[in-house]
Amino acid sequence: MRKVLIANRGEIAVRIIRSLKELNIQSVAIYSAGDKDSMHVALADEAYCIGGPKSADSYLNIDRILQAAIVSKADAVHPGYGFLSETPEFARRVEEAGLIFIGPDADTISKMGDKAMARATMDEAGVPVIPGSDGVVESIEDVKKVAQEVSYPIVIKAVSGGGGKGMRFAFNDDDVDKLYKEAKKEAKSSFNDERLYVEKYIPKARHIEIQVIGDGKGGAVHLFERDCSIQRNNQKLLEEAPATILSEQERLNITETTRVAIGKLNYRGAGTIEYLYVPHEKRFYFIEMNTRVQVEHTVSEEVTGIDIIKAQLRVAFDGEIGFSQDDVQLKGHAIEARINAEDPENNFLPAPGKIERLHFGLGRNVRVDTHIYNGYVIPPFYDSMIAKIIVTGEDRTEALNKLELVLGETVIEPIKTNLDLQYFLVRHPKVHSNDYDIKFIHTEHIID
Amino acid sequence: MRKVLIANRGEIAVRIIRSLKELNIQSVAIYSAGDKDSMHVALADEAYCIGGPKSADSYLNIDRILQAAIVSKADAVHPGYGFLSETPEFARRVEEAGLIFIGPDADTISKMGDKAMARATMDEAGVPVIPGSDGVVESIEDVKKVAQEVSYPIVIKAVSGGGGKGMRFAFNDDDVDKLYKEAKKEAKSSFNDERLYVEKYIPKARHIEIQVIGDGKGGAVHLFERDCSIQRNNQKLLEEAPATILSEQERLNITETTRVAIGKLNYRGAGTIEYLYVPHEKRFYFIEMNTRVQVEHTVSEEVTGIDIIKAQLRVAFDGEIGFSQDDVQLKGHAIEARINAEDPENNFLPAPGKIERLHFGLGRNVRVDTHIYNGYVIPPFYDSMIAKIIVTGEDRTEALNKLELVLGETVIEPIKTNLDLQYFLVRHPKVHSNDYDIKFIHTEHIID
Repeated sequence: MRKVLIANRGEIAVRIIRSLKELNIQSVAIYSAGDKDSMHVALADEAYCIGGPKSADSYLNIDRILQAAIVSKADAVHPGYGFLSETPEFARRVEEAGLIFIGPDADTISKMGDKAMARATMDEAGVPVIPGSDGVVESIEDVKKVAQEVSYPIVIKAVSGGGGKGMRFAFNDDDVDKLYKEAKKEAKSSFNDERLYVEKYIPKARHIEIQVIGDGKGGAVHLFERDCSIQRNNQKLLEEAPATILSEQERLNITETTRVAIGKLNYRGAGTIEYLYVPHEKRFYFIEMNTRVQVEHTVSEEVTGIDIIKAQLRVAFDGEIGFSQDDVQLKGHAIEARINAEDPENNFLPAPGKIERLHFGLGRNVRVDTHIYNGYVIPPFYDSMIAKIIVTGEDRTEALNKLELVLGETVIEPIKTNLDLQYFLVRHPKVHSNDYDIKFIHTEHIID
Repeated sequence: MRKVLIANRGEIAVRIIRSLKELNIQSVAIYSAGDKDSMHVALADEAYCIGGPKSADSYLNIDRILQAAIVSKADAVHPGYGFLSETPEFARRVEEAGLIFIGPDADTISKMGDKAMARATMDEAGVPVIPGSDGVVESIEDVKKVAQEVSYPIVIKAVSGGGGKGMRFAFNDDDVDKLYKEAKKEAKSSFNDERLYVEKYIPKARHIEIQVIGDGKGGAVHLFERDCSIQRNNQKLLEEAPATILSEQERLNITETTRVAIGKLNYRGAGTIEYLYVPHEKRFYFIEMNTRVQVEHTVSEEVTGIDIIKAQLRVAFDGEIGFSQDDVQLKGHAIEARINAEDPENNFLPAPGKIERLHFGLGRNVRVDTHIYNGYVIPPFYDSMIAKIIVTGEDRTEALNKLELVLGETVIEPIKTNLDLQYFLVRHPKVHSNDYDIKFIHTEHIID
């Protein structure tokens, strides 16, 4: 019997274990000393404590994870999202240990992790990219030359960047003079990689992403798109599928373009190609590719009926996706609300603690993916997301109304959560009229 | 704005309120003094306490319910299932008060409540019925004559019967001599109606039922069939859709025959036609029609994507079903497990009490319809069903495996429930091989 070690925790570990059980594959959990009462530990067939509560000592500790995999005689490792899921070194070490890494190979992860290289790769594969520098820029003059070509405003970005570090917006040559060295210094200190590249700044955009699965041999399918434009500081809050802002023709074009590119790259496993979409231009611009399952994969599952985790497992074990593009049909509309244990009144600081009253609004068209339970103590060491509430409806309006009702029924106390913010958002007229961009929460001053 | 009073409690009241909210219709709850902390009271827009905890004083008290409907200015009354949902007098009184009764008219309820008349009506409408007497039997000789026609064994049944009262099995003329008067006496004392009728006894049957919705003007659709053969003493435990024991041709035939009959009867609202199906004969025999929504309507919703409560509301308010037969497509397989607060070790006596630990296995393809919450005290006055766990899968095997996993994750303590029995059943080899009849639990000695 096959056995998979899940190198993760929280809801995604629970999610993966459930699909493993459905496929009659043995599951091995790993956990930190801070997670001994976690649901993924209780649900897995085996569980190994691999270190202290800090991520560096446990969920980021490659040696310990590999030891658990070897001791448990696992055949494969599922990295989930976050932690080591996009660390090329981890994928390589897993394969060197003779195990299957459930995801693309280390080189692909590495290539997509280098933002300049990802951009060049996708450009070559036929995907629309943001106009900008041809790879790395070497000097202030280089930056200004690119700006002349693409016109201001531009964004200077770190090649190894993420979370806005090493990123600077420039509206003219003077800005470039001022900000270039700053960006370089911050990139160096944040990522130990001072390389920069330049892109045109795209304002008033929506975040639209395509879910893909490749078989590693040129075969690829897409599971249509998600719209994840409602964000707080680039953190997604509400995610939905499909993106109703697109016309049917736009949907067909971007999903097919993306699928063809993924096939060309011989991509293996599940992945997401993220775009900025500018409604008044009707144009897409590639941002980045995530080479792992995403938090919001659920909404794509709901509108297509396909289990993405099972598809990952089929590709990893059998080299087959298990279905063809024609089998993927959109039905209805799904929206996910991320529920975070954080304090909206206090700059969204994580708010760990014990859950003493827990109740989810349930019933028809409601899916809840979570690792929490009544009496669970949320540890302070990890991501603050504690649940994903996913609803479906025949159309977007029905789904939004349903989500409002479900959030209204849900109780998570006494810890602080973003439930009220989410409730406010799903009732917001601009959310209902689909009239917003990724800065919406900030420009509308919904939060300070 | 429209307003609907829900003349019920428990999970079905919660279920109805949720669909009302989705349609932006105001909801009015009624409750007994034993139900003040019930979820349906908390979720409705308004709630009225109408009497003491005993059903006779509250949920069966037509005067009090109508008073609440009038005081709240409700436009319509939804009866749910059980309680007054099949009491012609209630439907008539609601309509006399100038309100809409969400269901068929009193005459239809009355006709279907009379088992002999229901049988005759359905026979005439073209539905296959169990061979038996042409209406009521008047004497021992009548019974013996029918037995000669249909051959033994036969069942003598009360016209107003239910729950096995006034019912006797006869294998020969001597049995009839012995049992006729007994049955008559029991029918008289149980239902104040001594009339009897006779049907051939159908052994080794499955319980298969067709979900229908009629517009009251001859239009009718079916939502395919359910298989509810896993029962304890005629109480359904596991219900599923579709019935995989049927061939595609059998499915088409029985659903279409039923739909046509319902159209002929100008039936209004949701209803279920229940059949015995004998696999080795490949024949259906009408048992009875329920003129209300059923507990297990959920599995039909899951495999068709149609909200049956909303369809009831459309028919009641607009005289329209809202979709055509062609819109009803089967997808996947759904199974419902009824979770009852009862003690399997003690003859399944109801086991009310406080719920101190509550956790449902959730995630993809899981729906939970329930009115219970952590800390809820199950009152001793009503039906012992406290939750319905509904899972879907691509096929029956996937759904059974999923249900096993979800039941395995679910905790309802410290009260006694049938969770373990259900867990045992979904793992049973005969359940997996689809090789059982409605007596299965008893003939296999799964319970004493």
